[in-house]
Amino acid sequence: MNVVVQNIKRADVDVIAGLAKCGVATVHEAQGRKGLLADYMRPIYSGARVAGSAVTILAPPCDNWMLHVAIEQLQAGDLLVLGTTSPSNAGYFGDLLATSAMARGCKGLIIDAGVRDVRDLTEMGFPVWSNAVFAQGTIKETLGSVNVPITCAGAQINAGDVIVADDDGVCVVCREEAADVLAKAQAREANEADKRARFKAGELGLDMYDMRGRLAAKGLKYV
Amino acid sequence: MNVVVQNIKRADVDVIAGLAKCGVATVHEAQGRKGLLADYMRPIYSGARVAGSAVTILAPPCDNWMLHVAIEQLQAGDLLVLGTTSPSNAGYFGDLLATSAMARGCKGLIIDAGVRDVRDLTEMGFPVWSNAVFAQGTIKETLGSVNVPITCAGAQINAGDVIVADDDGVCVVCREEAADVLAKAQAREANEADKRARFKAGELGLDMYDMRGRLAAKGLKYV
Amino acid sequence: MNVVVQNIKRADVDVIAGLAKCGVATVHEAQGRKGLLADYMRPIYSGARVAGSAVTILAPPCDNWMLHVAIEQLQAGDLLVLGTTSPSNAGYFGDLLATSAMARGCKGLIIDAGVRDVRDLTEMGFPVWSNAVFAQGTIKETLGSVNVPITCAGAQINAGDVIVADDDGVCVVCREEAADVLAKAQAREANEADKRARFKAGELGLDMYDMRGRLAAKGLKYV
Amino acid sequence: MNVVVQNIKRADVDVIAGLAKCGVATVHEAQGRKGLLADYMRPIYSGARVAGSAVTILAPPCDNWMLHVAIEQLQAGDLLVLGTTSPSNAGYFGDLLATSAMARGCKGLIIDAGVRDVRDLTEMGFPVWSNAVFAQGTIKETLGSVNVPITCAGAQINAGDVIVADDDGVCVVCREEAADVLAKAQAREANEADKRARFKAGELGLDMYDMRGRLAAKGLKYV
Amino acid sequence: MNVVVQNIKRADVDVIAGLAKCGVATVHEAQGRKGLLADYMRPIYSGARVAGSAVTILAPPCDNWMLHVAIEQLQAGDLLVLGTTSPSNAGYFGDLLATSAMARGCKGLIIDAGVRDVRDLTEMGFPVWSNAVFAQGTIKETLGSVNVPITCAGAQINAGDVIVADDDGVCVVCREEAADVLAKAQAREANEADKRARFKAGELGLDMYDMRGRLAAKGLKYV
Amino acid sequence: MNVVVQNIKRADVDVIAGLAKCGVATVHEAQGRKGLLADYMRPIYSGARVAGSAVTILAPPCDNWMLHVAIEQLQAGDLLVLGTTSPSNAGYFGDLLATSAMARGCKGLIIDAGVRDVRDLTEMGFPVWSNAVFAQGTIKETLGSVNVPITCAGAQINAGDVIVADDDGVCVVCREEAADVLAKAQAREANEADKRARFKAGELGLDMYDMRGRLAAKGLKYV
Repeated sequence: MNVVVQNIKRADVDVIAGLAKCGVATVHEAQGRKGLLADYMRPIYSGARVAGSAVTILAPPCDNWMLHVAIEQLQAGDLLVLGTTSPSNAGYFGDLLATSAMARGCKGLIIDAGVRDVRDLTEMGFPVWSNAVFAQGTIKETLGSVNVPITCAGAQINAGDVIVADDDGVCVVCREEAADVLAKAQAREANEADKRARFKAGELGLDMYDMRGRLAAKGLKYV
Repeated sequence: MNVVVQNIKRADVDVIAGLAKCGVATVHEAQGRKGLLADYMRPIYSGARVAGSAVTILAPPCDNWMLHVAIEQLQAGDLLVLGTTSPSNAGYFGDLLATSAMARGCKGLIIDAGVRDVRDLTEMGFPVWSNAVFAQGTIKETLGSVNVPITCAGAQINAGDVIVADDDGVCVVCREEAADVLAKAQAREANEADKRARFKAGELGLDMYDMRGRLAAKGLKYV
Repeated sequence: MNVVVQNIKRADVDVIAGLAKCGVATVHEAQGRKGLLADYMRPIYSGARVAGSAVTILAPPCDNWMLHVAIEQLQAGDLLVLGTTSPSNAGYFGDLLATSAMARGCKGLIIDAGVRDVRDLTEMGFPVWSNAVFAQGTIKETLGSVNVPITCAGAQINAGDVIVADDDGVCVVCREEAADVLAKAQAREANEADKRARFKAGELGLDMYDMRGRLAAKGLKYV
Repeated sequence: MNVVVQNIKRADVDVIAGLAKCGVATVHEAQGRKGLLADYMRPIYSGARVAGSAVTILAPPCDNWMLHVAIEQLQAGDLLVLGTTSPSNAGYFGDLLATSAMARGCKGLIIDAGVRDVRDLTEMGFPVWSNAVFAQGTIKETLGSVNVPITCAGAQINAGDVIVADDDGVCVVCREEAADVLAKAQAREANEADKRARFKAGELGLDMYDMRGRLAAKGLKYV
Repeated sequence: MNVVVQNIKRADVDVIAGLAKCGVATVHEAQGRKGLLADYMRPIYSGARVAGSAVTILAPPCDNWMLHVAIEQLQAGDLLVLGTTSPSNAGYFGDLLATSAMARGCKGLIIDAGVRDVRDLTEMGFPVWSNAVFAQGTIKETLGSVNVPITCAGAQINAGDVIVADDDGVCVVCREEAADVLAKAQAREANEADKRARFKAGELGLDMYDMRGRLAAKGLKYV
Repeated sequence: MNVVVQNIKRADVDVIAGLAKCGVATVHEAQGRKGLLADYMRPIYSGARVAGSAVTILAPPCDNWMLHVAIEQLQAGDLLVLGTTSPSNAGYFGDLLATSAMARGCKGLIIDAGVRDVRDLTEMGFPVWSNAVFAQGTIKETLGSVNVPITCAGAQINAGDVIVADDDGVCVVCREEAADVLAKAQAREANEADKRARFKAGELGLDMYDMRGRLAAKGLKYV
């Protein structure tokens, strides 16, 4: 059965903004090293760092019809997140759809398929993380669903989950856990600032983390 | 039998220039979604968009001898297009060959193998789409052919066909169809300009393309 | 047995600087087309060109403990070079470790595994060549070794070997052969400057290298 | 938090047996073309066709400790299903663990990682679908969880879901839907028997499915 | 434009039978080392060796409609050969279609996409060379063409060309060249029988092919 | 410089036979989890288990000349082990070379490149582990070396090292360590026989290895 779930819950705007600032690596660590999408999901340009609520799309292979359906469900600050029912690298998304999505306040696209018009998308400042850049066109023949749970690049994503994406890749945070994860991520960041200063001053991790005894106990020999 | 075909027909210069302006995604759509090379063909730097007549090269694996032969056949505005008789990622081409090719007006290289000296090539503004960046050297021992039909990254290419390449990848247009494809591509572009404005103003694809009825008929449920 | 070899020999500083200037493709050719790491080793940003003495790390999969151990062994001008005992794409290295390594004069990292915090590393100007960009965290449970011979991306590397890395990839030069390779690489460069000028002036490789006779003898036909 | 869920619900034994008999392709179609694991999951030998209740394992990379924990949770007719928190091809499982699992009535293993001792496993008749055959050893250092929801080869799997596996790959059926899917799969099979006979007698799909009119309407030309 | 070419020329039956007997490696060598499909095309079971006239299919991704159309065009001794307009691993073909194809005398399938029901196909003795085994279902929505020139796994194939396939992979022979290639392949086989006997008796290739002088001339040193 | 090292040391015949009997997984564990070749090295048929002394070959891409040279260096019980100077999947080896190698007592081939005539090789009982099955022909133009240290599928191999290969893959054992590794492997096997019996009788690994306390200490919860 193909459905469009119209009312989804979203995380708090400030929580989302906070997670964006922390970035993927920190958020991934803060939530116990879970939620990463596969490393083949790469940004079309460097330097973007975004977070947003997932409007999820389950799409057939080589068929981008559901993107049009999903765009109507977007609210400002959302991210489109597309998984397919069969692997595809076709170019589901280009500058026209990006124009439409941006008009509704969409902040980017996470797609386990291909994207095209990447030069235009770069100029427009619309970030995309995809499994391919490929101009191959798609059709509009088969239904999928919007705002249902999907698997995208190996990660389980529910509509309204918070997605964080930057040059390191993409991470999903469960909506219910987002505030808690942000608190942990910010604590981690505060802690890292101190460490960064000490590392810069030449202190070694061996000493900072008191590793020498444990290394010796495990049998490491210096020769 | 190894041959060099010396006189090849080329498409009209203005047609080629027009296709370059349209770009890969539009040209691919305009000619009925055919002609794309595989998505593993990536540019060595972002932002280049070129079109030119193909001087084709069928080369043995790890042997770049035929590139020297092909360069003599170049006319201003041509692109070198190399396929191999066995898969290879070796670095067939670097800054010296690029200097030679540029001296004859060559606008770039499409190679289903590796390229090297990419920092120099980037500074020289000589764009390359390749399956790898790899410094591995090649030899000059075995003949191939120039300006014969080749398969390159899964696409069939004849000498004199028009190649369009940009950040989205590479597309081949049959020489005989080039003018017709350009007309269709330009019509498509004109059409897209209007759509882009309407999308920007917030109109939805669902309405612009009158999709709601067909979606309902196929059984899409809003919940 | 897990060991840290503390005193390693390094090549001459001027030799290393000379090799960096020549770059990967030239050095690879000069030493007889050997020493390249696999082409999947890609830089996290374009434009870096470095050479340094290898401080080698043999690390367990998904365990970055030995990086802390290795950093203590760094001298100014060294490069960290990490191979794993089982394939891994986890993110062994980020901005904190980079801060620590830079404090000791380290010039970069070559890692047959993943790296993260690439936006920070780019801003810091710390170049990394890796098999993946991936935020996946690692543990600190199992010993490895430092400054032992390793295999990294298919190449055999000994501690103190000279590593050259740029946009074309990564090449290893045996420490004992470094001065000799530099001499050959510089001779090659001098030779190339002359060729570059002649290519620019329009001379063909077919004539410069006197290839026409040999091509005809092998049976190449012009039609 | 690392947990072992001890009491899981399982589908009816006869339903599971029925699904095994239908096989992966039929079950996948019967449940609306969902539930397939990625095509890189291959059997270690040909000819096995099994179904069973999933005892799920979420395991760290290169660490097979949780397999020992999971085996205690097995009931006769179960399948072990392992996903990792970071990609791995290490050999988590061999003939000793298979002996232990078989002693508890386990019918096979689905693992998005490596397996080893495949000659022994083949002789023992213990089928495995894996992403690799690799002898690389694993450690027992880090906890995971048992009978929690996992992602395995791109599919979401809950403990107690029915897994069907044969030479075509692996498919997951939600426990709650298993009886319904079986009914649909059996109807499909009955239908196929009739079609098979008609195909064998030479009837064409074009006629059997009455396709000629729709093909002509779409514009197919016979020349 | 989507077409079905109904009357195609085929090579002589005895020539096709002769090529089958020679096998892929010999035929590939005999025709000058061309015509191989990519090495990812693997047989679903070992031991099959077939040759036949290609009935070509250009199919959309994940849409197997054209297979039904193509089966009507089969004559006894033909092989179905399918390329797609966009990469796909979906399961286009299973035991029902195989039953239909066998009823018309079809000897096998070459498909640059996926296949399913491989256990049944193996029992039926219907050989398939494919890029994947995957149960993923396909649709019947979009037209393709039959008996037009296609690219399949990197090779250009025209309807009526002779396809040879065995455990080494798949090779295409141009219809017009088939008799000539057969003659060369048989000469090669006769020649190999003699060599095989001499190798078996212990004669070395170094002596049989008189290589020692050329090796020494190139500089090979025995130490 | 291209050399053929004619006199290499080999491990004791009984040690080699013992290692063959233990198999890859046990040997790999016994020598401290090192020495595995990459998991893409697959046997052309199932069930072979061999060990032998490595006659190493460093070969250019797509050039099998050095195989002829290496065969002269074979003694009964040796294995040919080929690495390339640039990645290749070409078919370096077929039934003629196998006939020649078998005439000298060679027990198999390990090749980080392609192999062909696999149906014949299977009938002859000549096992091969390769990175590809591909009929693509090679040339005889460029020298390599025989019995020099090589890298093969990511592992460092010296001439005379013992290679163990079976359905799990390929493992290299340093010649000097072979006797010691055998002793450890046999001890391991003896130990495993006891464990196997206990597992068969239903004892759990959790109890046999006394894991429950450590699991609880790490925080595993049963719910």
